[in-house]
Amino acid sequence: MFSSSPKDFGKTPLLLDKNENPFSLPPSPREELRQVLCQTALNRYPDGPSTRLRTRLADYLGVDPSRIMAGNGGDELLYLLFIAFAKPGGTVLTLEPSFSEYRHLSKIFRQEQRTLALRFDGSSVSLDEEAFIDAMALLSPSLILLDSPNNPTGLSLSETFLQRVVDLAPCPVVVDEAYVEFADRSLVDRYRKEEHWPSNLVVLRTLSKAWGLAGLRLGYVVAGEEILSSLEAVRPPYNVNALSQEAGQIVLGYREWMESRVFSLRYIRDHFIQEVNRLDGWTAYGSSSNFVLLQSPLSREALEALLDSEKICVKFPEIPSSENTFVRVTIGKEEEMGSLLSLLRSYEEIVPLSTAAQA
Amino acid sequence: MFSSSPKDFGKTPLLLDKNENPFSLPPSPREELRQVLCQTALNRYPDGPSTRLRTRLADYLGVDPSRIMAGNGGDELLYLLFIAFAKPGGTVLTLEPSFSEYRHLSKIFRQEQRTLALRFDGSSVSLDEEAFIDAMALLSPSLILLDSPNNPTGLSLSETFLQRVVDLAPCPVVVDEAYVEFADRSLVDRYRKEEHWPSNLVVLRTLSKAWGLAGLRLGYVVAGEEILSSLEAVRPPYNVNALSQEAGQIVLGYREWMESRVFSLRYIRDHFIQEVNRLDGWTAYGSSSNFVLLQSPLSREALEALLDSEKICVKFPEIPSSENTFVRVTIGKEEEMGSLLSLLRSYEEIVPLSTAAQA
Repeated sequence: MFSSSPKDFGKTPLLLDKNENPFSLPPSPREELRQVLCQTALNRYPDGPSTRLRTRLADYLGVDPSRIMAGNGGDELLYLLFIAFAKPGGTVLTLEPSFSEYRHLSKIFRQEQRTLALRFDGSSVSLDEEAFIDAMALLSPSLILLDSPNNPTGLSLSETFLQRVVDLAPCPVVVDEAYVEFADRSLVDRYRKEEHWPSNLVVLRTLSKAWGLAGLRLGYVVAGEEILSSLEAVRPPYNVNALSQEAGQIVLGYREWMESRVFSLRYIRDHFIQEVNRLDGWTAYGSSSNFVLLQSPLSREALEALLDSEKICVKFPEIPSSENTFVRVTIGKEEEMGSLLSLLRSYEEIVPLSTAAQA
Repeated sequence: MFSSSPKDFGKTPLLLDKNENPFSLPPSPREELRQVLCQTALNRYPDGPSTRLRTRLADYLGVDPSRIMAGNGGDELLYLLFIAFAKPGGTVLTLEPSFSEYRHLSKIFRQEQRTLALRFDGSSVSLDEEAFIDAMALLSPSLILLDSPNNPTGLSLSETFLQRVVDLAPCPVVVDEAYVEFADRSLVDRYRKEEHWPSNLVVLRTLSKAWGLAGLRLGYVVAGEEILSSLEAVRPPYNVNALSQEAGQIVLGYREWMESRVFSLRYIRDHFIQEVNRLDGWTAYGSSSNFVLLQSPLSREALEALLDSEKICVKFPEIPSSENTFVRVTIGKEEEMGSLLSLLRSYEEIVPLSTAAQA
């Protein structure tokens, strides 16, 4: 609902609004999937617990398959977490800003959403970790949701901080790592070799972003026994369809392809940040993800008009603590980011900054 | 959990436990789906509101697409109905027996499930309609769930009765027509031509049964504007994956194929009922569905052992009002039902009824 959605369909829109991976499935796994399509009995219900998919995910992560549950996208798993753990009249603690679904779900499940605002200092974003720990003690939440990398800022939370939260939290802590392949290290790596996975830690992951399968809706959680059994008690019996289960298994066999695409996107991202920061009045915040948060000298209306003129779709996130115009840009292919940069540069040349700021 | 699950995997099990369609997708739609697979950008999120799929469903039903919502199987839509309408401390009114998920969901969403027991008179099943209407007035439920045809009895509820429930109910009425293509007429036909769809009526349908797409998880509801907007407010943004949306559209183009398969299954069902009723001590209840409820002279243990010996999977439903052994058998292909009948006949020949009853 915050996306700019150009109305004229003459030109192909540039989709930089949903943090999708711009690279589509290569021919080889696609051919494997076509083969599978001939062999899958679509008239039969899928395997309820997604057993083989979970085994492949477990190989990828280096954990035991029993620590994993698969869902119809990360979205469904967030629903199940709320169904299982959001107590009547409870409080959900999140960052502000964070993934917009947290607000939606808090409303749906009648939870009070309390947030700790991230600090914007004009060139970087940070979290007051002590204030978060204090808020946690004060509010006794039913559920804590921390997206790391954070959406829409791209901020990665420190492992030391996350460990403290997990150690001190009075409730399940969901660390939403939807974008973690674009960052340096997952919390799963921190805990996977230990005998006891923390009983209140849920790491939420997805094949939608780095693995480029948003269309197939494949999310998963890594969690301890107790939490998984609570989630299992509320999981719909056949929640992941048969073709997505097959596709997930196939694509997980192409890890090098995924990693090389992630490598490219990180490179394109860092170059894009550098170039935006050269533009007069613009700030691109550092990002550990496949998107970048920009602060623009233009008004939202002026920026929307400019982007619409070239059919570039982006997201305008709500950043309540600031009156500046913020825009979240997904990292696309090199030439796509080039088009966006050219547009921003051309506007700068035509409209001097003093005028633009009033637009 | 009530399925018999044979342990020895040497022989292919006969799957008559999940009310699946025994006929798999024919080559022609399968080839179309293979083509679509090459063209679908799996790296992009699917169309959130399943627009084109809903248009095809609307054509099939003769209603406006705006009256339809698609879901990740009927299961997801039941979840959304509970999320939207199950009030805290509320009551859900259902039949007893009925689809086992109603009990599961009532528990998950902390609803009191009140039920009206169907009457078993030894040769047929019926509903005390007046008693249901009275219970509805007395209990003021938050949600009414009526499966018609009823699972596991196969009983179709009368249109006059359903109309009265819809007229008098103080809450949304979900008429679960998962199996309606095997019956005579859908409630959608009753209301589709009227200007005003009843504001509290939700008809739940699926492509899992008659259409044979259980593996793809495609359910849908037909409902009035107000209910759909409440459901839309709680729907996950991308709930139906891209390939299932495509497959649904393709398969809906093969209506004659579906109808001919349904015709065959009804014929096999009616023949099976007739043959079972010839067996000493057995009753097969009449069914408007693709399954048949049998009352057996054997104990559950004896029957399980017998079916396990031939790897025939069935479901043993809970029928609280009776001490007899009931078993729900999905209608498979003609030869599959033949195997089951031979097994029951051979047992009858070896073990006289008087002995069997004590087994």
